[in-house]
Amino acid sequence: MENKETKRTDVNKLGEFGLIDHLTHDIVLQNKSSRRGIGDDAAVIDHGDLQTVVSSDMLVEGIHFDMMYTPLKHLGYKSVIVNLSDIYAMNARPTQITVSIAFSNRYSVEAIDELYEGILLACKLYNVDLVGGDTTSSPKGLIISITAIGEAKNEDIVYRDGAQSGDIICVSGDLGAAYLGLQILEREKQIYLEAPQVQPDLENQEYCLRRFLKPEARKDTIEYFAKHGFKPTSMIDISDGLASELFHICKQSDVGAYIEEDKVSIQPDAYQLALKFNVNPITCALNGGEDYELLFTVKPDDLEKVRFMPGVYLIGDILDKKEGINLHSSGGNIYPLEAQGWQHFKAE
Amino acid sequence: MENKETKRTDVNKLGEFGLIDHLTHDIVLQNKSSRRGIGDDAAVIDHGDLQTVVSSDMLVEGIHFDMMYTPLKHLGYKSVIVNLSDIYAMNARPTQITVSIAFSNRYSVEAIDELYEGILLACKLYNVDLVGGDTTSSPKGLIISITAIGEAKNEDIVYRDGAQSGDIICVSGDLGAAYLGLQILEREKQIYLEAPQVQPDLENQEYCLRRFLKPEARKDTIEYFAKHGFKPTSMIDISDGLASELFHICKQSDVGAYIEEDKVSIQPDAYQLALKFNVNPITCALNGGEDYELLFTVKPDDLEKVRFMPGVYLIGDILDKKEGINLHSSGGNIYPLEAQGWQHFKAE
Repeated sequence: MENKETKRTDVNKLGEFGLIDHLTHDIVLQNKSSRRGIGDDAAVIDHGDLQTVVSSDMLVEGIHFDMMYTPLKHLGYKSVIVNLSDIYAMNARPTQITVSIAFSNRYSVEAIDELYEGILLACKLYNVDLVGGDTTSSPKGLIISITAIGEAKNEDIVYRDGAQSGDIICVSGDLGAAYLGLQILEREKQIYLEAPQVQPDLENQEYCLRRFLKPEARKDTIEYFAKHGFKPTSMIDISDGLASELFHICKQSDVGAYIEEDKVSIQPDAYQLALKFNVNPITCALNGGEDYELLFTVKPDDLEKVRFMPGVYLIGDILDKKEGINLHSSGGNIYPLEAQGWQHFKAE
Repeated sequence: MENKETKRTDVNKLGEFGLIDHLTHDIVLQNKSSRRGIGDDAAVIDHGDLQTVVSSDMLVEGIHFDMMYTPLKHLGYKSVIVNLSDIYAMNARPTQITVSIAFSNRYSVEAIDELYEGILLACKLYNVDLVGGDTTSSPKGLIISITAIGEAKNEDIVYRDGAQSGDIICVSGDLGAAYLGLQILEREKQIYLEAPQVQPDLENQEYCLRRFLKPEARKDTIEYFAKHGFKPTSMIDISDGLASELFHICKQSDVGAYIEEDKVSIQPDAYQLALKFNVNPITCALNGGEDYELLFTVKPDDLEKVRFMPGVYLIGDILDKKEGINLHSSGGNIYPLEAQGWQHFKAE
C-alpha cells in the first residue's frame, strides 16, 4: 500500500533554489491577471489600476525557530514581519494577511494566545488586516504559514530584474546582527542544557537579540521612496544574507556587481560579538541572513536622493555581467562573492 | 529559558470553531479594502470593480492524510481542490494559488515531483496559476499550506449570511461517499498492518475511494449560475459535513432550517457501503465531510432555475430562527440536527 519509488534523489542534492527551479520551471501562466509568478519576492496579480502583490512564507518549529529560546509573542510578530518584508521589497504596501497554524497538543490555548498577540501587534503597527487562514493540529510542533497581500500601482512595482550597469547598490540598514543574535541564543541554550543553574549572559547583546527575535520590516524605506518621488531599479529583502540576495538581483538583471566591505554597515555590538565568536564580521553580513533590510539599486541620477536617506548605506555599484560579482575587501583585495543561500535541507 | 505558562487550557476544551472565535473575536479591520475578514469561506478584498477573494488551508500529514494510503499525486491534486472549493463557495472564480510545503528528508525529489504533478494538474484543469509559495524542510512529515486567490464582481459575491426564511436549500451533488472512502482505506490499512500478504478488497468501491482521494471542486455549479443569470442567497462548501455547514449558514444568516432525509442524495455504492460498515447512510452525509459539494440557498422565485440544474438536489427550506434546525427523517420523525464539525483536536 505504501508509495513506491523506483528512483530516490535526495533533496540536498538540489538545494532550495535548485528544488524550486526543478518544480516550477515548466509552469506556464494561464490567466491574464497573473502578471508575475514565481521568482521574485512576491507574485503580482493585475487588477486594473491597482496591482495585488502576494507572498507566502512558512515557519517550522525545529527548522526556523527553537521554542527553547523563542518567546511565542515574538515568534508571532516575526512571522508577520517576514512576510510584510517581501511585500515592501516589491515597493508595495501590505494590506492583508492570512495565517494558517498547525500545532500539537503540547500547546495550550494560552500559548496560542501569546502567538496571536504578537501576530496582531504586528498587524496593528503595520496597518495590516488579518482576514483569514486555517487552524489545525499537528502531530509534532508548531508550523506557521502566512500569506501577505499588498497593493501598488503598476508603475510603482519594483522587481529583481531591473538593475543596470552603473546603478548604485544600497542597503536600508546594518547587517549581520540577527545572525549573531541567533548565535548568542544557541550558545545559551547549550550552557542551559549542560548546567541549568548558570544564569544567561545576555548583557550588551540586546541589539543582536532584538534583531533576531523581533525584527522589523522597512515600511519607512518604501514610504521614503513615495515621498521623494523616485523608485529603485531593483529590490529584494535580505532574508538569506547580502551575498545570496545580490546574486538574485545580478542573475535576474543579467549584470555583475561589486560591493565594498568598508561600506557594509555592521552595528558596533554586533561587530564586537562577531570577533568574540571568532567570525569575520563581514561574513555575518554576507551570509548571516534574517536581517530583513532591503537591498536595492538606484540609477546614478538618483544618487543625491539616496545619499541622505536616513540609515541607508551605499555599498557598491552594478557592473556589466562579465565583471562578475566581487567584494572589495578593506585590505584592498578583490574576492569573488559566493551565494550561500539557504541551508536548511543540508542541516538535517 | 523555556516559555513559562501560569495557566494551561487544553485546546480541546474550545474545539476548532471556539478557538478561532477566541483568537479572532476582537479583530477590527483597518484597511478600507478589507471588505470581509474571517468567518466566511474566503476573505474579500475590495479592488474597485473586481473583488479579490482569498482563502487559505493547511493539510498536515498524520492529521489530514495518511501516507500509507494516499498517493502523492492525488494528495497534491486534492490540496488544490480543497482551496478552490472555498473560492467557488463565494461564487468567485479562482485565478491564482500559492503553495507552501514543508517536508522531512524522508521525502525524495521524486516524491515531491509526484506531489507537484498533482498540484499542477489541478491548476491546469481549473485554469489557475501557481504564482508563489515557500519550500522548506520539516523535522517530521509533510505539511502543505495553500492560499487560493480568486476574483468576482462585487455584486456576484455570495456570503454565508444571506439566507432568508422561505429560501430553498440545495446541494450540488451526493454526500457521504468521501467519508466512506476514508473508512475503506482505514480498514485496508489495518488489514495490511496485521496481515501484509492479504490483497486489498477494493472492488465496487471506486466511487467512494475517488471521492475521498481525488475530489473535484464545483466549478460547473458556479458557471451555471453565471450562465443562467442568478445567484444563491447564501453558499458554503461542504468540507465538514452537511450538518455543520448548514449550522454556519443558519447562524450567520440568523435563521432556522429543515432538511428532508429522503432528499439528501447518497450514491448507491456509498449507501451499501454505509450499511456494510453499520453506519446509518444519512449520518455519513450529515457528519462525514470532505465532499466538497456546495450547499446553497436560493429565493423561492428561483425555484424553476434550480429545479433542473444537473446534479443539484433540493433538500429543504430555510425557516425562521425560532423553528430551529431539524432533520425530517424518512420515517416521518423530526430530529434536531447537531453540528459535529471538525474533530481533529479531539482525536489526539
